[in-house]
Amino acid sequence: MLRGKQTWWFEKRPVIIGAATVVGPDEGDGPLAADYDLVHPELDLQQKSWEKAERLLMEQASDFALKKAGVDKQELSFYVGGDLMNQIISSTFAARSIGAPYIGMFGACSTSMESLAIASLMVNSGAANSVLAGVCSHNCTAEKQFRYPTEYGSQKPPTAQYTVTGAGAVVVAPEGKGPVVECATIGKIVDLGIKDPFNMGAAMAPAAVDTIQTHFNDTGREPKDYDLIVTGDLATVGHGIAKDLLVRDGVPMNDTVFTDCGLLVYDVARQKVQAGGSGCGCSAVVTYGHLLKRLEQGEFRRILVVATGALLSPLSFQQGESIPGIAHAVAIERAQ
Amino acid sequence: MLRGKQTWWFEKRPVIIGAATVVGPDEGDGPLAADYDLVHPELDLQQKSWEKAERLLMEQASDFALKKAGVDKQELSFYVGGDLMNQIISSTFAARSIGAPYIGMFGACSTSMESLAIASLMVNSGAANSVLAGVCSHNCTAEKQFRYPTEYGSQKPPTAQYTVTGAGAVVVAPEGKGPVVECATIGKIVDLGIKDPFNMGAAMAPAAVDTIQTHFNDTGREPKDYDLIVTGDLATVGHGIAKDLLVRDGVPMNDTVFTDCGLLVYDVARQKVQAGGSGCGCSAVVTYGHLLKRLEQGEFRRILVVATGALLSPLSFQQGESIPGIAHAVAIERAQ
Repeated sequence: MLRGKQTWWFEKRPVIIGAATVVGPDEGDGPLAADYDLVHPELDLQQKSWEKAERLLMEQASDFALKKAGVDKQELSFYVGGDLMNQIISSTFAARSIGAPYIGMFGACSTSMESLAIASLMVNSGAANSVLAGVCSHNCTAEKQFRYPTEYGSQKPPTAQYTVTGAGAVVVAPEGKGPVVECATIGKIVDLGIKDPFNMGAAMAPAAVDTIQTHFNDTGREPKDYDLIVTGDLATVGHGIAKDLLVRDGVPMNDTVFTDCGLLVYDVARQKVQAGGSGCGCSAVVTYGHLLKRLEQGEFRRILVVATGALLSPLSFQQGESIPGIAHAVAIERAQ
Repeated sequence: MLRGKQTWWFEKRPVIIGAATVVGPDEGDGPLAADYDLVHPELDLQQKSWEKAERLLMEQASDFALKKAGVDKQELSFYVGGDLMNQIISSTFAARSIGAPYIGMFGACSTSMESLAIASLMVNSGAANSVLAGVCSHNCTAEKQFRYPTEYGSQKPPTAQYTVTGAGAVVVAPEGKGPVVECATIGKIVDLGIKDPFNMGAAMAPAAVDTIQTHFNDTGREPKDYDLIVTGDLATVGHGIAKDLLVRDGVPMNDTVFTDCGLLVYDVARQKVQAGGSGCGCSAVVTYGHLLKRLEQGEFRRILVVATGALLSPLSFQQGESIPGIAHAVAIERAQ
């Protein structure tokens, strides 16, 4: 099961038997609009608070994923999830609705692949008959908590990123129809001393590169073994840094193979999203919405999703701490 | 591996090969003082902030646990941890020092057994050669974040609990000398509508009872199969409610068998701790310090630790939400 130092090889080949995504209006205005199950026309989802709206995204994505998987809520073995909110309240209140035994996780924006890795480990080891793995984020809850309420209209530097309003969920099971979770590489903290919360791409890029390199070392694979290697939310600035670091390390990557969910989720040149998308929801909606569909359609055979997380808190920033970065990678293969 | 609906049975019998606890002055003044590896005489551990003090507790407990286990930091497969801070910064910064691949978890005070369950699952399934599972809390960081800074000297109702300043860590491995992690029952959210953040025992007690009942159903065990069944941090109020609920459900429990870490960690009658202890650190220091020693000394053969979590955030409280409760149980057996 453990291959190399940090990689779990799932011999039993857990299957993603259902996947769903629900997003807000900005994501619906982006290039991947057709890939989402539901696009809300209003940012508040007609809820009384941004937090209630975020929770509803998670509940809806979970409901859709379970329905597509043909798994009843009562049958579901476990829900593994997390989000960016303090005490991951969005996932917790969604877990109350879902009703399954619940494992809460936190890896900031890397929680998408962290939860998929744990869900796959559970299924692979016979610890579950079905696991729902899901994460969510909302632009207005995240901006309010980490920076300023969007209603203030405060200016942002071009290195800032735009938190995705969206939730993505998958149901992982021992067998069934769908793409296979092949392996997962669990990342280490990498912290090169970046302290600017408006430049999280720079803080996370070295962690993404560390996890990609470790994945290749642990598995003996090379970039050419993947049709797509996609980081979570490095956006323009972080993606450029990651590319440069990979060149330095002797693993240059082609632009058609190496990309980032934060660049795919929006039309960065047209939409007002600064350097690109971010948030747990970013890698989740791009992977579970867009990329799984391209796998199914035969466009890709195998992809590596490297979800990145900036593990800061407003308090750690105020106390002068740097931003620890982390990245967890999951390889997903087309059903054969 | 999955037994019943929510219980993982660890057939490979993962072993706790090292355990350590580090606490603050109030815990050192309590009845279990002799069981901790290090008692700090000052609440600030001579650090510049309460948060830095909390992080140091976690780093020291991890270092001691690894040393006792004879596992080098470079050899450690994974670190699984969490804490009560927003974005679990204490565990994350500790993970940066530890250097191992890191899985961040959040289950409020239940994170102690949540992380031990995941660590044991990883070892049992061959996904790790050794896993450090550890959690921490600090009275002043938690009070400041969830209620009021202790420096304000605000009054508290007698139902309030006193957050433990302490960290506990264990190293779990496929073999070695030490107590065995037999099985784990992962809890569901139980929310009966309690909204008072100064009465978390009442919010968590129904979740503890639900997990205990599920554990018995899943395993076919009864209270008499355990020498001790200990909840995480229900304290006086919650413990009384849990006992009543168990009587109602036809599973009355003897006071010598059924107790609570929040009652054990302090001399509740003498120390000014309101209803008793709470926090991730509460169940961790009592279990990893006191209870594992009593197992080793032959006083107990088998115990069930039911860590309880109140999954609120200050924001969810302010928005009028109730407090979702959860409890995860782990059965630990003496080495044979």
